[in-house]
Formats: sequence, C-alpha cells, structure tokens
Amino acid sequence: MHSTSEIYAFIHGEFIPLSKAFLHVGDLSVQRGYGIFDFFKVEDGHPLFLDDYLLRFYQSAKMMELPVIYSKDELKAKIYELIQKNNFGTSGIKMILTGGYSANGYDPAEPNFIMIQQPLALPGQEVIAKGLKIITHAYVREIPAAKTINYTMGVRLIKEIKAQEAQDVLYQRNSEVTELPRCNFFIVKQDDTIVTPSQDVLYGVTRKNVLELASKKYKVEEGTVTLADIKEAKEAFLTSTTKRILPVVQVGANVIGNGKPGAITLSLLDELITLEEQHLTALVKG
Amino acid sequence: MHSTSEIYAFIHGEFIPLSKAFLHVGDLSVQRGYGIFDFFKVEDGHPLFLDDYLLRFYQSAKMMELPVIYSKDELKAKIYELIQKNNFGTSGIKMILTGGYSANGYDPAEPNFIMIQQPLALPGQEVIAKGLKIITHAYVREIPAAKTINYTMGVRLIKEIKAQEAQDVLYQRNSEVTELPRCNFFIVKQDDTIVTPSQDVLYGVTRKNVLELASKKYKVEEGTVTLADIKEAKEAFLTSTTKRILPVVQVGANVIGNGKPGAITLSLLDELITLEEQHLTALVKG
Repeated sequence: MHSTSEIYAFIHGEFIPLSKAFLHVGDLSVQRGYGIFDFFKVEDGHPLFLDDYLLRFYQSAKMMELPVIYSKDELKAKIYELIQKNNFGTSGIKMILTGGYSANGYDPAEPNFIMIQQPLALPGQEVIAKGLKIITHAYVREIPAAKTINYTMGVRLIKEIKAQEAQDVLYQRNSEVTELPRCNFFIVKQDDTIVTPSQDVLYGVTRKNVLELASKKYKVEEGTVTLADIKEAKEAFLTSTTKRILPVVQVGANVIGNGKPGAITLSLLDELITLEEQHLTALVKG
Repeated sequence: MHSTSEIYAFIHGEFIPLSKAFLHVGDLSVQRGYGIFDFFKVEDGHPLFLDDYLLRFYQSAKMMELPVIYSKDELKAKIYELIQKNNFGTSGIKMILTGGYSANGYDPAEPNFIMIQQPLALPGQEVIAKGLKIITHAYVREIPAAKTINYTMGVRLIKEIKAQEAQDVLYQRNSEVTELPRCNFFIVKQDDTIVTPSQDVLYGVTRKNVLELASKKYKVEEGTVTLADIKEAKEAFLTSTTKRILPVVQVGANVIGNGKPGAITLSLLDELITLEEQHLTALVKG
C-alpha cells in the first residue's frame, strides 16, 4: 500500500503529492460551488471505458461554459502518467474542472483542473445479496445532463436517509422518478421489460453499458418511470461506476417483488462484470 | 491602499495573508459544491447590521447541517480582529462555512470556516441614474432560505445576460418571480403599494431594512409577484448588501413605467443611505 505522501495528484499543471494539492479560497468552487467533474475506474493500470467518460467530461464542461485547455489525447496522456506514478490496483480517478480563480468571486476565470486517484472498494457480496432500501425525495438536478459538482441536495439528505434506515435516495418530481444523487435507476416490469428514466438524468456510462447488455436478452425502454411503476415492478436496481449494479429491494414503503435481489438484476451484474473483464483484456493486449 | 500580501484572511483558525489562504482539494466545497456563506458591509471599522447577518449565517448553517464551532460573540470578536488587521475603508467581509475535509468525498466532516475581507465599491451615480435591464429565467433555488454557495445556475447565466445586453437575471417559476441570484426584487404598483415576493427567496437584510423604511410611507406587501404584475408596475427595483437599491427599468421585453428610475425607488435609496449612516453613527458612538 501507499502512504499518503506517496499518492500523487495533478493540479495547476503539475503532478504533486495529494497531501499538497490545495486550491486558493478564491476558486469559484469554494466561492460559488461552480465546477464539473467526472470519475472512472482503473484496473491493472488501465482506465475502463475512458473514451465514454472523457466524452461526458468535455460535454459537461461545454454545458457549463468551462473551457478545457487539454485535448483528449493530452488528457489521456496525463491520466496514464498519473496511473503510472500511483501504481494502485483497483482505483478511481476523479477529474475536476472548477470555475477558476475569479477576480470578483462570481465571473468564471481560467478553470482549475484537478485529478485525484484513490483506491476503490467495489460493493461486497453481502451488500449485493441483501439489496438496498432507498427513500424518495422531490427534486430534479439543475442541469441534469451536466456532471456538475453541485450535490447540495444529495449531501443534505444524508441525515434523512440514515434516519429512515435507508442507504440512498431516489429523486422524483410529480411522481416521475429520475435518478439517485450518484446513480441511475432501473426497474424490471412483470413482463421482464427493463425500463430506465430517459429525461432529467445524468447519462451514466454504466447505464449505457447495462442498456446494451440488457437489450440482447430483454425488451429495454428508456422512458418514464413513476412511483406507481415501482410499486408494480418485479425488480429494481441502480447503476454507477463504483457500484456497478446494486439490487434495490425497497423504495420508501414499497417492498419490490419478494424483497430479495431479483434474478434478472443479478444476471445483468454478472454480464457487466464479464463486459468489464473483456474490455480490460482488450486494453491489456493493446 | 494595501498590497495583496498585507490583506489578511481567516482560515483554519488563523489569521494569515489572503494570498496564502488555501483549502485542500478534499474540501467538500471543491468535491461537492457544499457550503454556506454570508456577506456584510464594513464602514469606518464597523460591520453594518451584523446581528442580522450573523443570525442568517447560523440559520443557513443549521439548514445545511453544518455546525459552527464559534459562538456569536466569538465570531464577532474574530470579525473585529480581521477588520483591525486589514484597516480598510468601505469593504465587505465574506464568511464561508464548507462541508470540510470529507474522508470519502461525500459525507460532511468538521466544517472549514473562512473569512475574507475586500474593498467594496458601491454602485456609482450613473448606474443608479440609468437603471438596470434584467432578463428572466425559469428556476427556483434549491433551498432558497439558506445562503448556500451553490450559484450553478446564476454563474451559468452570465453569458446569456450579456448576450441579451442585460445586467442581471430574475428567477421565475410558472410566471411567479422570486429573486435574482444575489438580490431581492420589489415592484411599486400604480397605487404606490410596494410588493416583494414572500416565498422561495433568500430573506435579505437589505430587503428587511427596505420593507421597514417603505412601510412608514407606503402600503407594503410580502406576497406574490407575477410577470403580469411587473408589466403593470409603476416602478421596480432590486436590493442587496453591495448594491443597496438599484432601479430596474426593463424586465425582459417589458419597459417599466417610462423606462427611467422611479421616484419612490430613488427616495427609498436616500432613506436607506440615511438609515445606514444613522446605524453607523450609533456604532461609532458605541
């Protein structure tokens, strides 16, 4: 393992120890919570599905009017340099692009770009076997398609989630659900049709991979998912880069199916893991 | 004047030069845009209406589950110490309370508290004489009564405001207006009734002072203001700590009254300036 002093980060155009990675308080992330980010997994020295994450990173930056000074190839080179310096096993790299050192504390300046890499623990078997209880909350993210750093609502709801003895929260508006703060949401209908919300969500890379895998065996829909649909659902699950696929066995007061992780959910998880292994093998072979 | 190195800030429990005031990138403001702040004016070494601003600061912190380690008296003492060290003329002090150095980049930790003081230029006569053109945008802040650092929407709209040759933006939802990103909004009806939105707004200290001043001479309402009401209005203006009262002469395509700053608006500004002078005199006399 690494001591903190050996972990490298990238900031202000340099690779420096993470413990020395500071931003001046004039940065617009501190002043106005203004910035975007993205996060991808690294295994055996290779980022998984990097092109998808970089595409979204540049799209988020564009939506928030933040220029990225690095080309995609320059960024890839810096990512591989960071991976080489840190030499972790399974880990995650977070890229953050802030509004920069604003002269008046409001207007964006030249963005500050930061990369942080840290070891990543994927969900254990017991979590997968038990499944998650989640609550719902009436909210839609401000610019859902952009991966901004604004988690004002999600972080504020941590206390409520714990009070309800739940593990996460699903956002809904007028009974139409969208996403969790850091995950996409899926249901499996009684006829085995797999549905995920199409609007007002962040378009997750894992969401995309799961939709592709599921469409080979099942009817798949990107559409509307209501609280009533969840009540009727056979299975439910969430997807994210760090969680892959996790079964959801209760949403608010509604127990999903028999209250146990669903067979289709678990089979999709197996297939997602296989997809990641195949992708990694191809990367290692170059 | 001061060179940057002579300006002091307060961070991590210490008074240090502003140029050395840094937060580690692990802070939740950088990771998740999570924090609250407040801002007040300082004149002749005294903060104006400090009790009102401190009350709101503690209320915002409570709403966002962020503990403040300093009592009100301890905070006042540190504020006066900062004022003494910097010895500015008219200036503003910003207090920021972030989610702190989160272990997992999501759950709040012990908050980081920061104070920054900088010289403040109040709006000049030409700005007041000309009045502002503002646009509208469909949006309501997430937790309007809390002064969070989340200005994702406001900052993103800067480009649109400039494109429309306007100076600011008024948020509305279903044609009911609420506030500007950093200001409260008022209209003067044809019968001289003064109205400001009562819901989904930050309760500004200047808003409160203006309501008190106005109620001595006019009928005052905290209620609903629609886009239609603005179209019919005799005058319109905004209020904020740094802008005091600024006339609004155009909202979107609608020119207010004769397109010039209104008489009631300008008289309220005079009375607000007088109120500030009286308040300051009382403070100086102790």
